[in-house]
Amino acid sequence: MPTIQKKWLSAALVGTLALSSIGFATMSDANAKEKAPNNKNGEAKNVIMLVMDGSSSTVSTLARWYKGDSLALDNIVTGGVRTYSAESAITDSGPAGTALGTGNKSNSGYVGVLPSVVTTPGVEPVAEEDHFKPVANVLEGAKQTGRATGIISTSEIQHATPAGFSAHAPSRSNYNDIGEQQVFQNIDVVLGGGSDSLHKTRKDGENLLTVLEEKDYDYVTTRDELLKSDSDKLWGSFAPSALAYEFDRKETKPEQPSLAEMTEKAIDTLSEDKDGFFLAVEGSKIDWAAHANDPIGMISDFLAFDDAVAEALEFAEKDGETLVIAVTDHGNSGISIGNKNTDSNYDETPVSAYIDPLKKATMTVEGALSLLNEDKSNIKEVAAAYGLKDLTAEELDALKNSKKLGSTLSQLLANRANIGFTTGGHTGEDVFLYSYGPAKPTGLVENTDLAHTMAKAMGFDLGELTDDIFVDAEAAFKEAGYTTTIDKTDENNPVFVATKNKRVVKIPENKNIVTVEVAGNNPNTREFNSVAVYNDKKFFVSEEMVKFAK
Amino acid sequence: MPTIQKKWLSAALVGTLALSSIGFATMSDANAKEKAPNNKNGEAKNVIMLVMDGSSSTVSTLARWYKGDSLALDNIVTGGVRTYSAESAITDSGPAGTALGTGNKSNSGYVGVLPSVVTTPGVEPVAEEDHFKPVANVLEGAKQTGRATGIISTSEIQHATPAGFSAHAPSRSNYNDIGEQQVFQNIDVVLGGGSDSLHKTRKDGENLLTVLEEKDYDYVTTRDELLKSDSDKLWGSFAPSALAYEFDRKETKPEQPSLAEMTEKAIDTLSEDKDGFFLAVEGSKIDWAAHANDPIGMISDFLAFDDAVAEALEFAEKDGETLVIAVTDHGNSGISIGNKNTDSNYDETPVSAYIDPLKKATMTVEGALSLLNEDKSNIKEVAAAYGLKDLTAEELDALKNSKKLGSTLSQLLANRANIGFTTGGHTGEDVFLYSYGPAKPTGLVENTDLAHTMAKAMGFDLGELTDDIFVDAEAAFKEAGYTTTIDKTDENNPVFVATKNKRVVKIPENKNIVTVEVAGNNPNTREFNSVAVYNDKKFFVSEEMVKFAK
Repeated sequence: MPTIQKKWLSAALVGTLALSSIGFATMSDANAKEKAPNNKNGEAKNVIMLVMDGSSSTVSTLARWYKGDSLALDNIVTGGVRTYSAESAITDSGPAGTALGTGNKSNSGYVGVLPSVVTTPGVEPVAEEDHFKPVANVLEGAKQTGRATGIISTSEIQHATPAGFSAHAPSRSNYNDIGEQQVFQNIDVVLGGGSDSLHKTRKDGENLLTVLEEKDYDYVTTRDELLKSDSDKLWGSFAPSALAYEFDRKETKPEQPSLAEMTEKAIDTLSEDKDGFFLAVEGSKIDWAAHANDPIGMISDFLAFDDAVAEALEFAEKDGETLVIAVTDHGNSGISIGNKNTDSNYDETPVSAYIDPLKKATMTVEGALSLLNEDKSNIKEVAAAYGLKDLTAEELDALKNSKKLGSTLSQLLANRANIGFTTGGHTGEDVFLYSYGPAKPTGLVENTDLAHTMAKAMGFDLGELTDDIFVDAEAAFKEAGYTTTIDKTDENNPVFVATKNKRVVKIPENKNIVTVEVAGNNPNTREFNSVAVYNDKKFFVSEEMVKFAK
Repeated sequence: MPTIQKKWLSAALVGTLALSSIGFATMSDANAKEKAPNNKNGEAKNVIMLVMDGSSSTVSTLARWYKGDSLALDNIVTGGVRTYSAESAITDSGPAGTALGTGNKSNSGYVGVLPSVVTTPGVEPVAEEDHFKPVANVLEGAKQTGRATGIISTSEIQHATPAGFSAHAPSRSNYNDIGEQQVFQNIDVVLGGGSDSLHKTRKDGENLLTVLEEKDYDYVTTRDELLKSDSDKLWGSFAPSALAYEFDRKETKPEQPSLAEMTEKAIDTLSEDKDGFFLAVEGSKIDWAAHANDPIGMISDFLAFDDAVAEALEFAEKDGETLVIAVTDHGNSGISIGNKNTDSNYDETPVSAYIDPLKKATMTVEGALSLLNEDKSNIKEVAAAYGLKDLTAEELDALKNSKKLGSTLSQLLANRANIGFTTGGHTGEDVFLYSYGPAKPTGLVENTDLAHTMAKAMGFDLGELTDDIFVDAEAAFKEAGYTTTIDKTDENNPVFVATKNKRVVKIPENKNIVTVEVAGNNPNTREFNSVAVYNDKKFFVSEEMVKFAK
């Protein structure tokens, strides 16, 4: 491994910037403060990866104007990221999370497994037998190196991006498998939404809350409980599915923590581990607001994300051995500062013409719609909460006749704020790379490169790790003279079964457990450091599991 | 001035990238090749500034897919740039060129002068007496340090961006003043369009072609003449106004050089100066195509620009003492990969769905329209040249009924290629920063910071230079006991006149010439290293001019 030297990227720039007395975005000396890392070969003790889902360059620019001050992210801009998937110019969060987590381009909806469809120029095809094969992620690698681990999201924690760092499933919507894997991954800190997927909505009839209790997690469901906990194993599930938007929280869900609070708590907890830690943080709902073309949701949840970045940077600056990477996984909505209104007067349209209309909103579209009466009689009040006061006759008509009220609200506000949108879907442009600390990536990179950079910084190789923890179970046991089958007696709980003479090996999917039964003896059950994955074709288990069981 | 150390920003990354076998954008080892500069305090012998006008992140991404290979720019992504003006969230190219050239935020349409309207939060107000005051640019500083200088554009050379590096006028459309100043700036290499503004369309009746001849320029008007010239003073004017789009050139203007050819020639010529050089290069018409929402013009002229960047980097890599900076001055058009067509299927839409429709075009909108008969009978042929073959009935109707044919062509192709646009104007998002070589800027910067970075790298301060070359002539001469007036006998050729006893000082606007007449003697005329600027209120002249004349 080549020696990677500490780089003082912005030391020169600080001098330059001092020449510029204008603009409020005077860079903090975050980079200048970077301590020399204690490690000697470009490794990082800790890695924090923060993903602002679906947040293109326009969102950060708009959020900065809205805030009226520089962003934490402004201090760590270091390059650009290519985001496409194996099959499309525009990625879905599933393959994006897979790229960032495992270093592999994949397909729409896939998390933590290889693609089956490769059409993108330059992406190497995957052999048919490897389609859907699970591939190791950086969190699994961090665990193997003795580090503490954590995942955080503002959506349900089973959602695509956190799943890309913690699970393996051909379908991102399979919260049964993803949720179960997360529980059996023994992640030290898990904070977000998605409690329903731990018990209420499970098809397999399992109650994962009981499992968490058995595993000695402190299971918390409110901000207060979170802040008070002093457990080193912490599972916070603050909503049945997603958390509220930061902007609406005080009004609608005051019992939920902010993303920054979750991040700070996770860092406090994980940094107790002397071997270091890996933490993945997602600001999930910037993306959802972008799909809804809601600039308020986008900006406010972006700023909530930026506060989480500030927490990460504050720790990393003090610590000196922490690599911080922040990215969006893809653009979304084609949002632009400027629209048809500004075709010919953009050059004289002040910042206030964009920001003042936005500042009138006190809730996101989601928050405002939650106020709506069943008979829609309070539509003016709802509009006012979204900043649409003094409605013109035309605007009022549009709202009254709307069949998609959220969409109409967004369109009216975007029009007032001179903001453009091209789509309700994701977009394919390169996005900014933000990084800080030892071994930080710079320049234009592939989203997949970031996973390899993190792995290298933590001292392991993702390819080797995949070979270690995802062995084709059927092939491995057959080679050792076993007969193998997949027991689907309980169709929602398939079990890999290998039999040789009187010896029966059982490995259930999504768990880190292997049971060996030898006729006449008590079953021997053991837990491992990774989970068994069934991708609806094959079972994949770790070398260690095979060694133990054989 | 603090020592700025050579930074090997991407040395670490090269190792990381080798891990990634997928994607064709394998980074060249441009950065790794960077030689240690010979200078000792972070200065650069040469500076090349390349501006791709109106070209947002989507354009580079799309151009890379279209090319099917990585871009020269991909090797030098180092940060981000804030682009707003003193009065607007979205800048015009006038204040953008002023920011990049002089380090000052200014107003719409202003080039090389201070703003009169400051409304942007964080921008310091300008005292009323300084409104429209000329401010020194990096080219003027480079001249003062003995460096050779050059400007290049594919538009008329008097256009806003090249003007920001070479002229001072309250109105960017005042090609009379801008063109005259450029001629009297004694720039060594000037290549682009705009010959009309040198003689045909001049209001002041001057023939600047004659002046160029007197100044011993090799004045060339074709590609062949350009490539053959071995003069160290070279003025190429290849069109009355703008050059053709690169994509159309072979068909419509084969006698014009490419931007890369102009850049290569300029570097060859300027690099003969042992004191180093400064060169500003603009790919002008990416912006014009963006205003027209023409993806073909945007992509093809972007690629032409990228070829010019490749020339600059090739020189800089060999030279080791050259700072290269590339940026767009602002976004334009809100272009996105993905539009309403891809609202719900973006995640499975392959690269080919965007690129194949674009690949069918053999001309830009401008080129295709040049084929149109007066009776529009060949509209199908025109559409086919723009890639619109096998027209549907609906598409054909749209073309036949169109009142803005260019606009309709663009819309139809964008629709086929799943590309979105939000506006016909500029946009306000942060853009990528590209830089290479000694003292290169990194991180998130203001557009104004880049001017100061270049000045510092060349060893001067723009504020001090402004104080040296733009003194209020009236005040300076009155202080020395002169009576002053502005002689507007020829309203298009105002002359500053200062009189004291028998001594009459005459300084014409836009020139580097001062004449001193003492009754009874021959007039004493001298040329200087900077031009006198009249901003319609006051005359500004250099300290040297004042010293000589007093």
